[in-house]
Amino acid sequence: MNDVLPRRARLITLEGGEGAGKSTALATVRDCLQADGANLVVSREPGGTPLAEQLRAMVLHASRQDDADERLHPSAELLMVFAARAQHVAEVIEPALARGDWVLCDRFTDSSFAYQGAGRGLDMAWLADLERRVVGFLPGLTLWLDVPVALGRARVQRRGGVPDAIEREQDDFFERVHGGFAARMAADPQRFARIDASLPLAQMVEQVQRAVTSYLQQVA
Amino acid sequence: MNDVLPRRARLITLEGGEGAGKSTALATVRDCLQADGANLVVSREPGGTPLAEQLRAMVLHASRQDDADERLHPSAELLMVFAARAQHVAEVIEPALARGDWVLCDRFTDSSFAYQGAGRGLDMAWLADLERRVVGFLPGLTLWLDVPVALGRARVQRRGGVPDAIEREQDDFFERVHGGFAARMAADPQRFARIDASLPLAQMVEQVQRAVTSYLQQVA
Repeated sequence: MNDVLPRRARLITLEGGEGAGKSTALATVRDCLQADGANLVVSREPGGTPLAEQLRAMVLHASRQDDADERLHPSAELLMVFAARAQHVAEVIEPALARGDWVLCDRFTDSSFAYQGAGRGLDMAWLADLERRVVGFLPGLTLWLDVPVALGRARVQRRGGVPDAIEREQDDFFERVHGGFAARMAADPQRFARIDASLPLAQMVEQVQRAVTSYLQQVA
Repeated sequence: MNDVLPRRARLITLEGGEGAGKSTALATVRDCLQADGANLVVSREPGGTPLAEQLRAMVLHASRQDDADERLHPSAELLMVFAARAQHVAEVIEPALARGDWVLCDRFTDSSFAYQGAGRGLDMAWLADLERRVVGFLPGLTLWLDVPVALGRARVQRRGGVPDAIEREQDDFFERVHGGFAARMAADPQRFARIDASLPLAQMVEQVQRAVTSYLQQVA
């Protein structure tokens, strides 16, 4: 299904598991694009509009425990994430691209395939249908910050803070999520740039810069 | 697609447009079932769980205006209604039916076909797919309180109060919704009992009583 969706050259997405250094990479991509003179909208998913941020808060603070008062069920999680995405696409991404701006988004549809599809075991054909109906396009470039699960988890733990409902999941969940990103990249390798996020930060940043610079030359 | 979904005999749903007398009908069905000795759970959609009620509030208080800060887009509305339904089915309806209880629900999937499908013009095949994936069954009996749009609207206006985001829609929207319910009934006439909700309340109540009594004899 994916290869029939059109790409939006000026949409760049950043994907990856926990502790992959996504904030640093985001700042790097932003700097590259702005140095190139691009008008840039930076956003994130789930979220990016007031309503979508409300849905994000509900998803990230809901319980996954069967013994909780109310457990968030996988189908509901998927539908809420795509509801947030429908708002984000219509209110932020489409208008920005229509103006000729660039959009840099921290997570996008690939995350749904990785977390709700591979992670929670929901039917990939359902996700592909939602991608087609609700989004209808693919990013021009997706940077996948690939880090081994154990290393990413160790970084998150060092960072401290209260883990959200996703961060409280077990290692086997994150192994499936990692496999989900790998499968998305394998199905559409041209769109993806894999960044080795196990490298020291300075080297990871260099890889991101190279990937973005090369993409900008390619679409110029 | 619908005729392949199994029916749940102990799930009775109440459907209909604005000003159809749904509260009175709900009380009537409840009384009939309790007089018959049924253990009964009464619920409503969108809603029925704390999380689903949060989604209901977001849907009913969102804006439909293009010039508003953030307009709720039809796809997002549909996905939020089905997310709420996923929670309601998993947390309330399935456990009640598994205990052998009866469930009486004020609105259910037929309302999505009427409001989001016929009313907002979303693809009916998408709704049928969501019904199959998220719900997977049909009610045993659906009472459709059928009232002409103009009469229903006049009753709502007499009742007063601040209209919610759905009630602020125009007459042509409600004509499409009415057609949506009629089409659902035409596709599955055995499941539906049409109640003439243009009748005086006492006569409408009698029709509801007759429909429920006859259904209870049929499934006994």
